[in-house]
Amino acid sequence: MNKVLIFTSFVYNIAKTRIKADEFDCVICADGGLTVAKTLGITPDILIGDFDSTKLPQCDNIIRLPMEKNMTDTEAAIDLAISKGYTDITILGGLGGRFDHTMGNIGMLAKHLDRDKKVCIVDGSNKVFMLLPGTYDIEKSSYKYLGLVSYGKECENLSISGVKYPLEDYRLPNDTTLGVSNEILENTARLSFTSGKLLLIQSND
Amino acid sequence: MNKVLIFTSFVYNIAKTRIKADEFDCVICADGGLTVAKTLGITPDILIGDFDSTKLPQCDNIIRLPMEKNMTDTEAAIDLAISKGYTDITILGGLGGRFDHTMGNIGMLAKHLDRDKKVCIVDGSNKVFMLLPGTYDIEKSSYKYLGLVSYGKECENLSISGVKYPLEDYRLPNDTTLGVSNEILENTARLSFTSGKLLLIQSND
Repeated sequence: MNKVLIFTSFVYNIAKTRIKADEFDCVICADGGLTVAKTLGITPDILIGDFDSTKLPQCDNIIRLPMEKNMTDTEAAIDLAISKGYTDITILGGLGGRFDHTMGNIGMLAKHLDRDKKVCIVDGSNKVFMLLPGTYDIEKSSYKYLGLVSYGKECENLSISGVKYPLEDYRLPNDTTLGVSNEILENTARLSFTSGKLLLIQSND
Repeated sequence: MNKVLIFTSFVYNIAKTRIKADEFDCVICADGGLTVAKTLGITPDILIGDFDSTKLPQCDNIIRLPMEKNMTDTEAAIDLAISKGYTDITILGGLGGRFDHTMGNIGMLAKHLDRDKKVCIVDGSNKVFMLLPGTYDIEKSSYKYLGLVSYGKECENLSISGVKYPLEDYRLPNDTTLGVSNEILENTARLSFTSGKLLLIQSND
């Protein structure tokens, strides 16, 4: 019991999502995420949300939140998953539409950034992780692009090899587009940095 | 000569954009932004880009960039606008699609964050500013939601009044969704904070 899938209410490029629900031990829908799950023919195990913009669905396992609260339904769904012991969390969607939600969801990667958890956001065009300082091997995949963006302030001593635009001991601030649109050329790219938080974004046009 | 409009290649909810080109002194298209401008019936004054994914268009005023460079076409377009003396910059789009570009564009708000410039990103659902510490009055508008997200690390002594969920001397970190989905209730909301960088996101569903 480890892998959980969380549906949000907005999934960009939904036709190109390659999510298989049977690879997850639990599926949670955050509020309007239920509509997305239905579109993909997936039945959730748990629904959570304030259902402020959708009718309260018929379902045995609903956690109803108050409308006035200090977090989004997606944050509550992630907290629920963690309280149930899941450490491998995939959030489907939440990278487009209302941009306050988008940035809030990226904040959730920062909130749950530790070595004992793996949290990522995916949609039909993107796969987004946040990384702590360390060394990582990233396998070449069906995603064409690899973007590196500093989250917080800056990442120090950033090196990446096996890619179209290598970097060595680079200080990457959060106000540049330099890390955008890299590409993995070898079977595996090697990435390392010594301080900061790094967003690793794999994407396709 | 002050207001410039920059088209990017991805505009979410384009049908709902309310851009009027004649309110701007100059229109610049960053690469594939030309396709978007054409969709809205707008003819740009300048095209800039590497045109790596589009055919080089017929146009008198093209700045052709190398494909291999340390910035995106959008960053180059903003730099061009600033070099020409524009201080009121509206970027149309760039908040969805490829997420490395999205975060790069938000980084551009941080790069150009000073009191002598006004830079915002708009699309059919969102209007996004980044703010330096200070006090601001925000008028109620046709946008339903007002989201506040700390960019960088945290914002200190954040207060907001005239809204559904007021805050007083709050420390807003970058790993929370607490600032999402606020709403302006009065004619004007008053916002202040003493340190950090704040993303102010007005949006509609």
